[in-house]
Amino acid sequence: MSVDSVDPRTGAVRRRVSEDDSEQDVRRVCAAAKAAYEEVRTRPRRWRAELLRSMADALEADCEPIVAAADAETALGGARLSGELTRTCYQLRLFAETVEDGGFLEATIDHAGPTDMGPRPDLRRMLVPLGPVAVFGASNFPLAFSVPGGDTASALAAGCPVVVKVHESHPETAELCGRALVRGAERSGAPHTIVQLVFGRAAGAALVQDPDITAVGFTGSLDGGSALMALANARPTPIPFYGELSSLNPLVVTAAAARERGEKLAADLVGSFTLGAGQFCTKPGLVFVPTGPDGDTLVDAAAREIRSRHGAVMLNAGIAAAYRRGLAEIAEEPGVSTRAAGTDAGEFAPAPALLEVDADQLGGRLGQECFGPEAVVARYRDEDTLLTALRRLPGSLTAGLHVAEGEEPPSRVLSTLEQLAGRILFNGYPTGVAVSWAQHHGGPWPATSTLHTSVGMTATRRFMRPIAWQDAPQSALPVELRDQTDDLPRRVDGVLVLASDGR
Amino acid sequence: MSVDSVDPRTGAVRRRVSEDDSEQDVRRVCAAAKAAYEEVRTRPRRWRAELLRSMADALEADCEPIVAAADAETALGGARLSGELTRTCYQLRLFAETVEDGGFLEATIDHAGPTDMGPRPDLRRMLVPLGPVAVFGASNFPLAFSVPGGDTASALAAGCPVVVKVHESHPETAELCGRALVRGAERSGAPHTIVQLVFGRAAGAALVQDPDITAVGFTGSLDGGSALMALANARPTPIPFYGELSSLNPLVVTAAAARERGEKLAADLVGSFTLGAGQFCTKPGLVFVPTGPDGDTLVDAAAREIRSRHGAVMLNAGIAAAYRRGLAEIAEEPGVSTRAAGTDAGEFAPAPALLEVDADQLGGRLGQECFGPEAVVARYRDEDTLLTALRRLPGSLTAGLHVAEGEEPPSRVLSTLEQLAGRILFNGYPTGVAVSWAQHHGGPWPATSTLHTSVGMTATRRFMRPIAWQDAPQSALPVELRDQTDDLPRRVDGVLVLASDGR
Repeated sequence: MSVDSVDPRTGAVRRRVSEDDSEQDVRRVCAAAKAAYEEVRTRPRRWRAELLRSMADALEADCEPIVAAADAETALGGARLSGELTRTCYQLRLFAETVEDGGFLEATIDHAGPTDMGPRPDLRRMLVPLGPVAVFGASNFPLAFSVPGGDTASALAAGCPVVVKVHESHPETAELCGRALVRGAERSGAPHTIVQLVFGRAAGAALVQDPDITAVGFTGSLDGGSALMALANARPTPIPFYGELSSLNPLVVTAAAARERGEKLAADLVGSFTLGAGQFCTKPGLVFVPTGPDGDTLVDAAAREIRSRHGAVMLNAGIAAAYRRGLAEIAEEPGVSTRAAGTDAGEFAPAPALLEVDADQLGGRLGQECFGPEAVVARYRDEDTLLTALRRLPGSLTAGLHVAEGEEPPSRVLSTLEQLAGRILFNGYPTGVAVSWAQHHGGPWPATSTLHTSVGMTATRRFMRPIAWQDAPQSALPVELRDQTDDLPRRVDGVLVLASDGR
Repeated sequence: MSVDSVDPRTGAVRRRVSEDDSEQDVRRVCAAAKAAYEEVRTRPRRWRAELLRSMADALEADCEPIVAAADAETALGGARLSGELTRTCYQLRLFAETVEDGGFLEATIDHAGPTDMGPRPDLRRMLVPLGPVAVFGASNFPLAFSVPGGDTASALAAGCPVVVKVHESHPETAELCGRALVRGAERSGAPHTIVQLVFGRAAGAALVQDPDITAVGFTGSLDGGSALMALANARPTPIPFYGELSSLNPLVVTAAAARERGEKLAADLVGSFTLGAGQFCTKPGLVFVPTGPDGDTLVDAAAREIRSRHGAVMLNAGIAAAYRRGLAEIAEEPGVSTRAAGTDAGEFAPAPALLEVDADQLGGRLGQECFGPEAVVARYRDEDTLLTALRRLPGSLTAGLHVAEGEEPPSRVLSTLEQLAGRILFNGYPTGVAVSWAQHHGGPWPATSTLHTSVGMTATRRFMRPIAWQDAPQSALPVELRDQTDDLPRRVDGVLVLASDGR
């Protein structure tokens, strides 16, 4: 089978990018990734940081053709895609700082000596790179969660070569990004096999099962992710599968917030759930609004706003069709009414929509993500109704709470949201995911299949494992665990010691 | 079915301890654990530390009856079991220090402000307890890896209530330990359901599948663990399964080390693999010794030592029978010779044994753990032969290297061992697992099913998940993330800041 670049605005094939990779192709690629791992796994942190920076430079140098290809393949628009490339380069450079900082290695030294339970040997622990990592590019972020995205950046920062299963929706973009990353890698003296691409669905399955692959990073659908996760678990040597799968991202508006700024909330909310044609894993798909006149004002304003909007071209024909199907399924659930719809802009640009239901009637298809520019407003009578509804929801990446100026966040609601999601937002919208040290992009199943994040500096932990060295001579230790080293924070005999430059 | 306490020295039933718990019993227990979680999950760190200390005190107060019951049920002897209880109490208290230290929360604050990719909201991240944890007690450490062991201590330190599936081999010990832990918990004001026990194999399966259980800690056999892991993966909401399953723990003796101290190595080695009747997950089951006269000296001395030894009573009749079966299977592999055997001391106390094979012929049953007082000596001609053999081995908890005084550890061997195991020992034996900050007890599959440890202070990470709070008012944040807090290390705007007392 061939892998074609398709124009989502017309459905026409732009060009053939590749053939599907065979199982043998995948085997060869993974063996090369393993060899690259052997070659680079013990190189100094400074080198690894330079590798990441060199990749960022190379991506930036190719910004124009990459953004052009990405727009041609995704219809997301040049402004959004330029921003995405900026974010991706920023992310690579922040991981470079993380590598230099060294705290992510969790270096720990316990000197030999007596303890309350007898003598203890000298023990020194730190995290080491796991091995080649498989990354599955996502359709909706061709630059931020695909070939050069968060999974790739964090795996490289951890010291792991990457094999990316290219998303069929943007193969040309993937190819251009892959070339830039390899050019950046070679400039810094890395083997060109430190980042490789494979094409085709069967190649993806073979990749997850390849004996040289040691972990999988995946962003995509619950069904696709669950199938790959089952393959990862069924291997003779099971490997961790870090899937970001599905999220409703509930938002709660308190009665006081609806009263204070219902119209403003309506406008911001519609802006958030229609951003990028609603194709964000953090799209707020479910909004809890109080019953009564203040809530009505909010919902009426949101409905007006939706009616004024036109559909935007979605990432591909399959996604547009799935969105239409999802909307129809939701509308058929008991008690659901379609409050407002915008204007359809052709087969590939379905109209945005706002649906409404009583919070008591949430369930069935309403408890599942619908990928695209829609949101369901769930009306709640009082806090108990709200809590009951929230407690029935599946896990999400984010959960939000909008309160009035000076209003104390209701503690039972807050506590319930904390058990539901990985990021709790106050008076904001989840669709932006800042790259930073404190970011967490993850959440209880089915939001993700992991207790780790795929965005932010701690994402490296997924691709590392600890080793403890017992009574090792200095020469046999990684430099970060030797006595004289002082360029990273370490826990020594139980006490955290900063690097000598105070970091 | 009834759960009986059995004397492993005679095979006689001592007393009936419990009935098997039904599925409904397990459901009720897990719901109570969930309620306990709700009650304690946000209590202050100081309280949680006191809980752990109070439990240690209660265990110590019951030391005599606990050790007596454990000896009656395991035949491990009073001295070893007293030491095990001391270790367990030490561990609880070291986790109390860990909780007070606060570093395990990974508290991180990124203030709002401009970045190279635009304005960033205020983001604050830390780890929170996951929820009720299921712990499967191990047969071979009735006190250190069972009801009050490392999984329980680290789950409680993380803030998670525990439900222990009692090992059938020591139900009375489990009951006594459970009572002591609950007494300690109640003294510190915790609900008595913070640690609960369930009995019976079916109850164990129900436990892994219970909707209120959020993670599983398991120490036991590869077959049993794999079956439970499949249940954990097949849940509607999959949960992490932290299994410690099987380990060969290879030891390499260099030619120079064999020449320098072959007889001493032989004596120490036999001491290590027969310790506790060889019933350690870290037992060195495979020892690489050079061919030639120096290696012969070592193997001859080990054989003499084995011949002088008697069998010790094993943990139960099933384990003794499995050991005999395993020995027979190994002896039937091509090229294997039984170099020496000790004296059988009855049905339940099989003789220790030393087997020998050419390193080129390692494979089949020789690549699997044989639980009991045996080791296989694999003779290697040169470094290449050794490396080839090592690269064919499955993952282990530990790998050891014995070199001569002043001999530089051979770098290719060291690098291969590092990819094989989670703890690398120099001139030592793996059978002691110190509880400390830098310890790592884990390793590549099938040693474990995780990238985390089950011993040492970082074991808490298995039972926690991150939450990021975005633009939260101070009152809505956990105290550890508020501006004024200074009693734990935090990363603030990318810079690690120690607690105000310098820790």
